Amino acid sequence: MKKIISLLTDFGTFYPAIMKGVIFKINPDVEIIDITHSVNRIKEGAFLLRSCINYFPDGTIFVVVVDPGVGSRRNILIVDGKIDNSPKILIGPDNGILSLAIAEMDSYKVYQAFNKKYFLKDVSRSFHGRDIFAPIAAHISKGVSIDEIGKTCSKFEKLDIFLKINSREIIGEVLYIDDFGDIITSIPNNLINDIKTVEFNDRKINIYDTYSDVKKGDLLVLKGSHGRVELAMNAGNAAKFLGIDIEDKVTLKVINAYS
Amino acid sequence: MKKIISLLTDFGTFYPAIMKGVIFKINPDVEIIDITHSVNRIKEGAFLLRSCINYFPDGTIFVVVVDPGVGSRRNILIVDGKIDNSPKILIGPDNGILSLAIAEMDSYKVYQAFNKKYFLKDVSRSFHGRDIFAPIAAHISKGVSIDEIGKTCSKFEKLDIFLKINSREIIGEVLYIDDFGDIITSIPNNLINDIKTVEFNDRKINIYDTYSDVKKGDLLVLKGSHGRVELAMNAGNAAKFLGIDIEDKVTLKVINAYS
Amino acid sequence: MKKIISLLTDFGTFYPAIMKGVIFKINPDVEIIDITHSVNRIKEGAFLLRSCINYFPDGTIFVVVVDPGVGSRRNILIVDGKIDNSPKILIGPDNGILSLAIAEMDSYKVYQAFNKKYFLKDVSRSFHGRDIFAPIAAHISKGVSIDEIGKTCSKFEKLDIFLKINSREIIGEVLYIDDFGDIITSIPNNLINDIKTVEFNDRKINIYDTYSDVKKGDLLVLKGSHGRVELAMNAGNAAKFLGIDIEDKVTLKVINAYS
Repeated sequence: MKKIISLLTDFGTFYPAIMKGVIFKINPDVEIIDITHSVNRIKEGAFLLRSCINYFPDGTIFVVVVDPGVGSRRNILIVDGKIDNSPKILIGPDNGILSLAIAEMDSYKVYQAFNKKYFLKDVSRSFHGRDIFAPIAAHISKGVSIDEIGKTCSKFEKLDIFLKINSREIIGEVLYIDDFGDIITSIPNNLINDIKTVEFNDRKINIYDTYSDVKKGDLLVLKGSHGRVELAMNAGNAAKFLGIDIEDKVTLKVINAYS
Repeated sequence: MKKIISLLTDFGTFYPAIMKGVIFKINPDVEIIDITHSVNRIKEGAFLLRSCINYFPDGTIFVVVVDPGVGSRRNILIVDGKIDNSPKILIGPDNGILSLAIAEMDSYKVYQAFNKKYFLKDVSRSFHGRDIFAPIAAHISKGVSIDEIGKTCSKFEKLDIFLKINSREIIGEVLYIDDFGDIITSIPNNLINDIKTVEFNDRKINIYDTYSDVKKGDLLVLKGSHGRVELAMNAGNAAKFLGIDIEDKVTLKVINAYS
Repeated sequence: MKKIISLLTDFGTFYPAIMKGVIFKINPDVEIIDITHSVNRIKEGAFLLRSCINYFPDGTIFVVVVDPGVGSRRNILIVDGKIDNSPKILIGPDNGILSLAIAEMDSYKVYQAFNKKYFLKDVSRSFHGRDIFAPIAAHISKGVSIDEIGKTCSKFEKLDIFLKINSREIIGEVLYIDDFGDIITSIPNNLINDIKTVEFNDRKINIYDTYSDVKKGDLLVLKGSHGRVELAMNAGNAAKFLGIDIEDKVTLKVINAYS
């Protein structure tokens, strides 16, 4: 069975194709899946990785490169872990981008990549996706032991997801805005169980199951498919309408609960 | 030979990757092709499906999810049919998105998916692409019989393509605007056989074979590669220039014919 | 081992998928890689091809369609060559788009495609990507000899990369602006060896190794991963900030060199 290498970067167009060339040159017998190449922030990328990782097959290798510190002294991490008993491998810079997925793992080992034998010969200072991350992933997919490529390390950068719950309100942050303009917050779905109406940033909004439960152009709050509370507009762009951006804080107050 | 699953959605970035993870988890031995994830309207998606379906190999499974009614009571359809003697399978919501391709089929059977055994265990209310459509496609690609997943049904939503022909003029509608800004209408190419010049929405435009037959920045009408009349601008964006949008009506009057 | 067909076009969304359908219909046992479908200019596409070609495996077939002259009398070229001892095949219109990659080849043979047996039956005048380029690539990937599809030709369109070096300054041109807004020039990296500071279009800018060597929002000049000098902004879009576009001329004056 073919190994899967999936790519999550902020590279936009073109550069991901070079990574694919590099990978296929080392291991022609691999399946490559683009997760997204349009990430804007490290935390956003970290959340998207965490949000999709469970849906990929055992043994999938995730190459995650949102790396404003490329070419500086930041480490390159390889994580060998298990989520829900499914082995997954993560490769990325040590800037927190892997940390939200690691936090979900039942068990894991973190390595720092150091063995230049598994990098490209000429390593640029500005495109490690091509010169380091892609070749490491390809070599691992071919069966090279991670012990051979890196050495275990105990410390790595961690990101916090903001979430504050008190008796009057829940304060979360925006983790992702999807291409529909739906606002995905850090607030877990189960916190709005049995609730009918909330104030979302002081705006009264009803909670519904799905978009078409409200009229076109109306806002709704729903239990989102990421497992987190979402604010959306039926047939419209909620984020643009409300002027809300990634990492903005959002406040949820319960107005009305089912008794 | 690998089965092909092709994806046509309005999901933008990220969400299609989760569908791919789900598919490969169920059937690692499948080829996935992205058709587009940037559809804006149901009719546009229906037209694009119809426009590309003949170019795909026998047995291709099309997963078509432009689904503003996700999570409501709308049915989920599986179509097992033949176009030009080539078997094709379509999976999508019952909102008309499959209907323009079905209309081209020589023979077909329509099913409603109901067997939850072939969905993911937890079905969200807002992401059936991941929870229902992708797993159904993967199971069919592995050989599960459609009879096992759905039951035949006789009624389904149909879309109409607008086209009105009279002695003075042809009135059609815009079905697609491509990334060049070319305007693809509902008017079949053969209706402009032997014609030199038309009035397109009261603007006199000559008919040519291809873009470079006119100067840069000039408009032309041509027999398009979708089999429908197109309005284009050489090295420019006709739709932006004319302010024309999808589903707008367009009028074509013959000014001048080859005798 | 599967042959790789890689696609570099200006087709945006949707149309590339039809090319993939056509390819898989002819040869199901091929790997397709999208390089980019967002090219704006012929020279830009030619540069991107040249910039990535070395990173792809032996035998990769590049289908390169930025083709404003589609349907006119321009020829269709097939190039069978070697770069750094690695065989590569290029297919594209004779408008210069292949010429920058050809210029890097140790040896090559250029053919004009003429044998309609290897095109689709109905060839449109506006979508040769689907009707000619994709089927030719698929047939070659299946082992059809290029001699069978085309005849050798000695003349083809060539593009020049602008670069003028004198004692006071280097004048180059912008070959690509990537999705970060980094400005990739035609000036080879080795021309800024041992230099600390330059005037870039009369603006004094320091040369650094990588983005994070400067503060967020600051400009830097660096030796780029394309092998050419780049102008970038840490965590910002240099091209937008400076109002610089593809094919603009840029001037570099040495202000300060390491002694």
